[in-house]
Amino acid sequence: TEMLDLPFLPFCVLLGGLGFMCVAFVSAWCQHWRGGFALDGSAQTFNWHPVLMVTGMVVLYGAAALVYRLPAAWSGPKLPWKALHGTLALAAFALAVLGLAAVFRFHNAKGTPNMYSLHSWLGLVTVLLFSCQVGAAPAPHHALSPLCPSLSPPLPSLQWLAGFSAFLLPWAPAWLRALYKPVHVFFGSTILMLSMASCVSGINEKLFFSLKNGTTEYKRLPAEAVFANMLGLLILLFGVLVLGALARPSWKRPDADFPDSCQVPALWRGH
Amino acid sequence: TEMLDLPFLPFCVLLGGLGFMCVAFVSAWCQHWRGGFALDGSAQTFNWHPVLMVTGMVVLYGAAALVYRLPAAWSGPKLPWKALHGTLALAAFALAVLGLAAVFRFHNAKGTPNMYSLHSWLGLVTVLLFSCQVGAAPAPHHALSPLCPSLSPPLPSLQWLAGFSAFLLPWAPAWLRALYKPVHVFFGSTILMLSMASCVSGINEKLFFSLKNGTTEYKRLPAEAVFANMLGLLILLFGVLVLGALARPSWKRPDADFPDSCQVPALWRGH
Repeated sequence: TEMLDLPFLPFCVLLGGLGFMCVAFVSAWCQHWRGGFALDGSAQTFNWHPVLMVTGMVVLYGAAALVYRLPAAWSGPKLPWKALHGTLALAAFALAVLGLAAVFRFHNAKGTPNMYSLHSWLGLVTVLLFSCQVGAAPAPHHALSPLCPSLSPPLPSLQWLAGFSAFLLPWAPAWLRALYKPVHVFFGSTILMLSMASCVSGINEKLFFSLKNGTTEYKRLPAEAVFANMLGLLILLFGVLVLGALARPSWKRPDADFPDSCQVPALWRGH
Repeated sequence: TEMLDLPFLPFCVLLGGLGFMCVAFVSAWCQHWRGGFALDGSAQTFNWHPVLMVTGMVVLYGAAALVYRLPAAWSGPKLPWKALHGTLALAAFALAVLGLAAVFRFHNAKGTPNMYSLHSWLGLVTVLLFSCQVGAAPAPHHALSPLCPSLSPPLPSLQWLAGFSAFLLPWAPAWLRALYKPVHVFFGSTILMLSMASCVSGINEKLFFSLKNGTTEYKRLPAEAVFANMLGLLILLFGVLVLGALARPSWKRPDADFPDSCQVPALWRGH
């Protein structure tokens, strides 16, 4: 397996390029073929949905997942990398919530029912799992903390905020972290897979909706269809490469299989 | 992580039940709501497509992937387990090819173009990757074999047959197997992920096609839509659990990270 060893950083550059292309493609599709963006409840409001979901649930999410694979994150205190991981994940979550708001606003303005297609069921399951992940990630840290018992409301964003302070002041016992970490890692990859399936089914569905009549029928494969199909394949390629990078043993932090010890910076320990 | 350790066999029973439910749900959907099965090029011919793809590319494929995780496969000669893995994979591939034949026959009989939707592009990429996998799996074994140079045509099934004989007579050097194995494992999980995304986009697309008018519109969420949406979620649950089981370190064969040595049965070695 030594012979197949790739350096991580060139791979990251490739991945960054692919992620940029995903965002550029989905934005260009909505801008050039679907009429651009608005906030008035029209079809242009809907266009925020694919852009925000692809940017949040695929590209930023993938970036967040890979933070600990950066060689720079392998040594020294883990706390700054945890902060980066949490910030990217929170940004991804915020974009996903805005992306859901865009499609609900569009449906409500148009009188279309919400949540009937398999795409919508899968997408909601994915974002709900992500909100549990966001809520639970810091939970082991604050679950036993006596500091903020009043800060655990059911809202995941508030839970995240409550946990965030605990995450910066990590007093959770090692056994709890050791227990929770593989669960977090498993759901991390699972949510990205579900995001990929959601994006593909959503793009497919949108093309059938939009390219219905006349010379632009989807089955005649106009330029828009080729472009959006390629967007779907790009998203899958990006996601598969992120999942492959996460699974690669030689790219894991050397201490990855040990309990995540309590790494309070020296300054805070009173040194 | 010890505390989260699950026994593999009860998990397998759960997975078997889920796989059975996937096949039962997709068959019931096509039989009860889509008019059953035929071979005459009609919509009933199409119905073989979802049944064969789900059974082949998800359920049998998942079973093939998990063969080496069975505790019984951990000790003793690896050859019988390789034969089981190869047989299940070949059965999955055969069903996938028949499933593609069903949809092409239906499209051609109806005059619908083939290969325009993102679902079709993704599905074809998945089956093509699988045919490379099927073709390449034994390739390291026969690439250097002087026995069958004339048996490497471009057709993957013939490639498989050519490789199969080499796979039963394994003379490939250890370094070649060690080089190829992680590639095979990575594409194994990737193909299952792409299958899951293909199934979801296909079910979504079919429901939009079938539930277009009157009281059965998809957006009114009739019983068929709820049932087929649940089929989509079941397929994803099955696939995610298979991928999770594959990734679990404690369920891997203890020698998983060592080169796959040449395990000719004692009988063939002349003992």
